[in-house]
Amino acid sequence: MDYTAAFEAAVDRVRSEGRYRVFANLKRHAGSFPRATWIRDDGSETDVTVWCSNDYLGQGQNPVVLDAMHKAIDEVGSGSGGTRNISGTTFFHNLLEAELADLHQKEASLVFTSGYVANEAALSTLYKILPGLIVFSDALNHASMIEGIRNGRGERHIYRHNDLAHLEELLRAAPANAPKLIAFESVYSMDGDIADICATVALAKKYNALTYIDEVHAVGMYGERGAGVAERDGIMSEIDIIEGTLGKAFGMMGGYIAAKAVVIDAIRLWASGFIFTTSLPPAIMAGAAASVRYLKSHNEKRIAHQERAKTLMERFKAVGIPVFPSESHIVPVLVGSAVHCKMISDILLNDFGIYVQPINYPTVPKGTERLRFTPSPDHDDKMMDHLVEAMDKLWTHCNVARMPAVA
Amino acid sequence: MDYTAAFEAAVDRVRSEGRYRVFANLKRHAGSFPRATWIRDDGSETDVTVWCSNDYLGQGQNPVVLDAMHKAIDEVGSGSGGTRNISGTTFFHNLLEAELADLHQKEASLVFTSGYVANEAALSTLYKILPGLIVFSDALNHASMIEGIRNGRGERHIYRHNDLAHLEELLRAAPANAPKLIAFESVYSMDGDIADICATVALAKKYNALTYIDEVHAVGMYGERGAGVAERDGIMSEIDIIEGTLGKAFGMMGGYIAAKAVVIDAIRLWASGFIFTTSLPPAIMAGAAASVRYLKSHNEKRIAHQERAKTLMERFKAVGIPVFPSESHIVPVLVGSAVHCKMISDILLNDFGIYVQPINYPTVPKGTERLRFTPSPDHDDKMMDHLVEAMDKLWTHCNVARMPAVA
Repeated sequence: MDYTAAFEAAVDRVRSEGRYRVFANLKRHAGSFPRATWIRDDGSETDVTVWCSNDYLGQGQNPVVLDAMHKAIDEVGSGSGGTRNISGTTFFHNLLEAELADLHQKEASLVFTSGYVANEAALSTLYKILPGLIVFSDALNHASMIEGIRNGRGERHIYRHNDLAHLEELLRAAPANAPKLIAFESVYSMDGDIADICATVALAKKYNALTYIDEVHAVGMYGERGAGVAERDGIMSEIDIIEGTLGKAFGMMGGYIAAKAVVIDAIRLWASGFIFTTSLPPAIMAGAAASVRYLKSHNEKRIAHQERAKTLMERFKAVGIPVFPSESHIVPVLVGSAVHCKMISDILLNDFGIYVQPINYPTVPKGTERLRFTPSPDHDDKMMDHLVEAMDKLWTHCNVARMPAVA
Repeated sequence: MDYTAAFEAAVDRVRSEGRYRVFANLKRHAGSFPRATWIRDDGSETDVTVWCSNDYLGQGQNPVVLDAMHKAIDEVGSGSGGTRNISGTTFFHNLLEAELADLHQKEASLVFTSGYVANEAALSTLYKILPGLIVFSDALNHASMIEGIRNGRGERHIYRHNDLAHLEELLRAAPANAPKLIAFESVYSMDGDIADICATVALAKKYNALTYIDEVHAVGMYGERGAGVAERDGIMSEIDIIEGTLGKAFGMMGGYIAAKAVVIDAIRLWASGFIFTTSLPPAIMAGAAASVRYLKSHNEKRIAHQERAKTLMERFKAVGIPVFPSESHIVPVLVGSAVHCKMISDILLNDFGIYVQPINYPTVPKGTERLRFTPSPDHDDKMMDHLVEAMDKLWTHCNVARMPAVA
């Protein structure tokens, strides 16, 4: 057994498909986001505009957030020093969990080290808590949900993406008295489409199933107080478990679930991925609490955000750049090949100072490789002019397929 | 199907075994660790000494670490804004990974959101990279290693804790040309015993197996530069994959692996738990890098740490408190019942201002419930006097079994 050769083969498999990942080394500039410095391997630096950040609202540079972090570091130091159970629950963890329960108007919430861990731990643990559980999962659910459901090792059914007729067919075929859970997302972050939450909840009620919604790409950005699409659609109180992140619109890191107190308590006591890990640093919790609180009362950020996304989409369409029919703040542009996607992204970065990472398999299906733009309220008209002009040139230069111009 | 009743039943099962977890709400005092404020449910506050933190060396309040965090926040803001691949690799991530590769004298390292995720992601992914892999796992490995190995869904064999004769028996029985991995820890954090790393590596070489060591409770604390027990024992260069944490002795959060460049590259490209999650905030990376760098050249911290642990162990033994035969910095005291353990811990907290969390199943086997003390260089003689006196009183008061006094 030649181990080195085996590891090399695993790397080569990725490389031969043109999807070897090179991480761009960045230094953001607090106060002038989305501007950043890109550092090349040889140490040389170029200023760039970041067009693919999930810091959707620029909260990562909001002084309210940064001040809360500084203050917590001065007060209590850096790490928490332990798991939540063994010396790692701090004042700031409790503060944030109260803030999140209030955001979603649920009895309680529970913070995990990441959104990935929240999904993996909560979903796999629900199989333990509810013996015989059957999970019905949307085909395009995030990798973390898929992992959680697989690791639960129980019965699961995948329904075609956002296809509620298919979901109902599967629900109808399952035993009436078995525990059931429908797991889905609100905003699907790679296509930008949005689930019909009201209709999904109606099905759940009809077949006595629990609902678990991932609002990771919606919290902070939708609804009057930023609780997500379920809030916007007036259906939040009917959802059993809401999962969200602190790492995107809230500008920090970590994930959470919000639900009835007994649901939270059971998951807290049973989830391996929650129990056996060091809790998040107090400063992260303090910053996240400040960010959640801030966004509850700053709807103007959300309005500006939606305007920017719509404007970029229209401007791309006007020059025939093939934008996905996104209903959300995400502006994905189809390229369709990993090699092509990487080439365009490299030229944008090197020649135009525009940073947008190519999105390849396994993040999206092969053949649908894309560039995924996430304009924030801080991406101004001048930056947009520059981007649209560069893309227009490149589409001609690289001979990529266009849509009929709709200007 | 009554869901609420099902969740209640799951909570009641834990409660009826006396192991319902109540998280102590703490506010550490930066600059006077291990002192902290304990906040009761009614909001009233008491000053306490924390005796169960994994901030083993007090790095969570080291000004070098806190300054690095402040500086990074001022420069680049709070969150990274994305996964490592999509705008979430920063200057500080690269800096830290170089620092860790140097620490372990390996070609490369890779940072994960936690030690739990590092173990789960790395181990489960090795099954994908090495088809037909057989993992040999120590019976007392951490939950995160067990999860990673289970989620890999391949062949695995559990050998009796630190029993190398049993390990060899299992290795001998496996096909000679199958890829093999021995997964074990250096310091087992609940008992405080230490693996024979040299003998394990010798077995690995004999049967052409890879070695994967978890040094989570050793990094920062053992070896001339704080790289762990493998460094102390002069065997580090022979280990294939070293896993560590930034959340304990380094006073921060996050986990990592260090290995040959091709091993790191393969895991980086294949691990779901690495790919699909927001990277750690730049300030966390900056603080961690400062902490790792600091501890490389401050061996006096490690000497003081070992002295404190030995002193506490001797002092407990002198009054017949049943200390586990720990070879490390961890001082576990046997109680043997979840209910008893919780009672003693409650009295220590309420009446003596001593915070030590009861350790129950599933963290340790039922019947071995314990109090686990982790003295740091900052736990002074006066604090120790107070603790030993309190424990002595309580052991009489609660009529708990003693060892023969060995003073």
